[in-house]
Amino acid sequence: MSEFGFRVLKNDRASRARLGRIRTARGAIDTPYLVPVATCASVRALSSEDLLALGAQCALANTYHLALRPGAELIRKFGGLAGFMGFPRPFFTDSGGFQAFSLGAGKAHGVNKLGTIFPGRAEAAGKSPVLAEVTEEGVRFRSVYDGSEHFLDAAGSMRLQSDLGADMIMAFDECTSPLADYEYTKRALERTHRWAEVSLRDHDPRQALYGIVQGGWFRDLREASADFVSSRPFDGIAIGGSLGKSKDDMHEILDWVVPRLDRRPRHLLGIGGIDDLFLCVEKGIDTFDCVTPTRQARRGILYLSPASGGAPANNFRFQLRGARFKTDELPIDPACACSTCRTYSRAYLRHLFLAHELTFFRLATIHNVHFVLDLMARIRRAIREDSLAALRREWLGT
Amino acid sequence: MSEFGFRVLKNDRASRARLGRIRTARGAIDTPYLVPVATCASVRALSSEDLLALGAQCALANTYHLALRPGAELIRKFGGLAGFMGFPRPFFTDSGGFQAFSLGAGKAHGVNKLGTIFPGRAEAAGKSPVLAEVTEEGVRFRSVYDGSEHFLDAAGSMRLQSDLGADMIMAFDECTSPLADYEYTKRALERTHRWAEVSLRDHDPRQALYGIVQGGWFRDLREASADFVSSRPFDGIAIGGSLGKSKDDMHEILDWVVPRLDRRPRHLLGIGGIDDLFLCVEKGIDTFDCVTPTRQARRGILYLSPASGGAPANNFRFQLRGARFKTDELPIDPACACSTCRTYSRAYLRHLFLAHELTFFRLATIHNVHFVLDLMARIRRAIREDSLAALRREWLGT
Repeated sequence: MSEFGFRVLKNDRASRARLGRIRTARGAIDTPYLVPVATCASVRALSSEDLLALGAQCALANTYHLALRPGAELIRKFGGLAGFMGFPRPFFTDSGGFQAFSLGAGKAHGVNKLGTIFPGRAEAAGKSPVLAEVTEEGVRFRSVYDGSEHFLDAAGSMRLQSDLGADMIMAFDECTSPLADYEYTKRALERTHRWAEVSLRDHDPRQALYGIVQGGWFRDLREASADFVSSRPFDGIAIGGSLGKSKDDMHEILDWVVPRLDRRPRHLLGIGGIDDLFLCVEKGIDTFDCVTPTRQARRGILYLSPASGGAPANNFRFQLRGARFKTDELPIDPACACSTCRTYSRAYLRHLFLAHELTFFRLATIHNVHFVLDLMARIRRAIREDSLAALRREWLGT
Repeated sequence: MSEFGFRVLKNDRASRARLGRIRTARGAIDTPYLVPVATCASVRALSSEDLLALGAQCALANTYHLALRPGAELIRKFGGLAGFMGFPRPFFTDSGGFQAFSLGAGKAHGVNKLGTIFPGRAEAAGKSPVLAEVTEEGVRFRSVYDGSEHFLDAAGSMRLQSDLGADMIMAFDECTSPLADYEYTKRALERTHRWAEVSLRDHDPRQALYGIVQGGWFRDLREASADFVSSRPFDGIAIGGSLGKSKDDMHEILDWVVPRLDRRPRHLLGIGGIDDLFLCVEKGIDTFDCVTPTRQARRGILYLSPASGGAPANNFRFQLRGARFKTDELPIDPACACSTCRTYSRAYLRHLFLAHELTFFRLATIHNVHFVLDLMARIRRAIREDSLAALRREWLGT
């Protein structure tokens, strides 16, 4: 039996935000929390000691990528992700279903799950090879690494996730394209619900299983999915994309879904912009995962708190490449207490970035991860102290 | 005035090896020592905190690269390299003279300074653009970054090195090609000695200046250079390449040069293979610098001590890519106490390497740097305890 548990410690008065604690055999996770993403069993540019030093409570790894390389069997031999990575804290894994979208319809349509049309990809839409094809039984993938063919179904996803040994796993689902029409999205949802039953039946009972609410941006489908997933004995509820065609759509979808859910923990898959963190916490989300903080760090995009000029207008970030930072003696964010900000100037970090020095990627990632984890700690404190609305106004201005 | 000083604490009985201590305003360096190389103000993949955690006593940075990017003036504004990098220990800088070879004749001849002909470069010899041209006055460089033209002479090198603010700096010299003939090498040496006088006259007196012995693989030139440099009031003596056409030539050159030097500290430029460390210490070298340990780490070539199978036959290293490490639960070197070996398996590190994960580069570099710094500490202890020959036999078998 899973040692998993979740308690809501406090409900916010003014919103659906809630303070909670997830309990696992590998330790607790105080929520709301943004889970760092270790796609290939590494939070890119960070070591497991770095994660511990940052106080990371848990991590999320990707089943599709790890199954292809180095293989789930190998990770099982090392006692699962925690043993393989040397990070002895709770893990989430996703189910591989997201890649059915990102390598399939996402490529065919040239969009991401919020419907953002990528520059250059719209033209390529339908031309670049589609690496995933959904059938009633499961998803036929081509490896992004060597083109080899793989078939993944719900039972297979549960087996892989058992091998990876995460504490919290996801039901196998199909993430549909934001450009999919009602009829397609409805058929996909029916598949996803059938696969949810297989996931419930076949998953390793030592792992906590999250069901996934899908349904695109169609209200009746989202509501039906929320009701279905709620009715089944999942340990937690995840909300998957596509989440409409804009951030406003995403917030509306959460308003349809969350009120239909009970007290089980709620995970929002793949979302983690600074404004999203506030708004989705207030809509009742307990955990998020997102590669944005680490990916942006590697591109020289660094987070900035309101005390240092961060605001919705600049998305709480700046691009370090700018010539105005050439001689800047300040740390990335003078209000930040991370080890990078305590030691290095913007001028030095900019030099490392422009010189393509490997050291840059880690130092920048440490800042961005510290920044979002610290923000989550502030949000938890604000819920505890009934000051979440004030904190949101301080950051978002509204 | 420079606070620089050097004391020989003990001379080995069986060889020219000596235990010493360099004193600088930023702290002491126990010798013999392999100085980690921070080419562009970063030991590639490591942070300054990593260097401190590794117990690095000092670092060496490259004037040519830093003058081009980010510029020596900028580094001066940050209090020199120590302030800019946040590494508050002694620094060496080179003079830029080595790039006169590596970007000039080295490219034209398709060789490195030991005369190794690079695969693919021999054919390209004389065809790839030569980026440095030596004149009597100095060296005309083209930037490797943007092709812009720069002229560097001894006075300019002293100015740049003053701005960079290292504790130990190098006289401006010409490193000749191992393929250069006697006549060319003799003329180059005369230039190098004239530039040495300018360096003595123009250098920042707060910095300790090392004169550089050149002369290729010609005995009379090397001896004349050793005598000339010894006769001038340098704070230390560096021995520059080319060091003949093989490692045997290099050892012979040291036998010509070192007996003519006095008790001032001796630096061997750009050498640092595991066998070299033993053999050159025994020939009387106090400090080395070399990018090999860090460069090899990034390529998956990891050091191995004799207790774990390291030997001259495998150059004390192995390539982690090998399939036999796929499931290997051992650390890189079971006899190593570095943070990487205390935490991670070969299987995990191999996965990171094959997945091109940035984390790999740092973890591997930590191991290789720890390995060579630990070896230098063992060598110092062996000199102190009159057991250097035994340590050498343990490692080299002879």
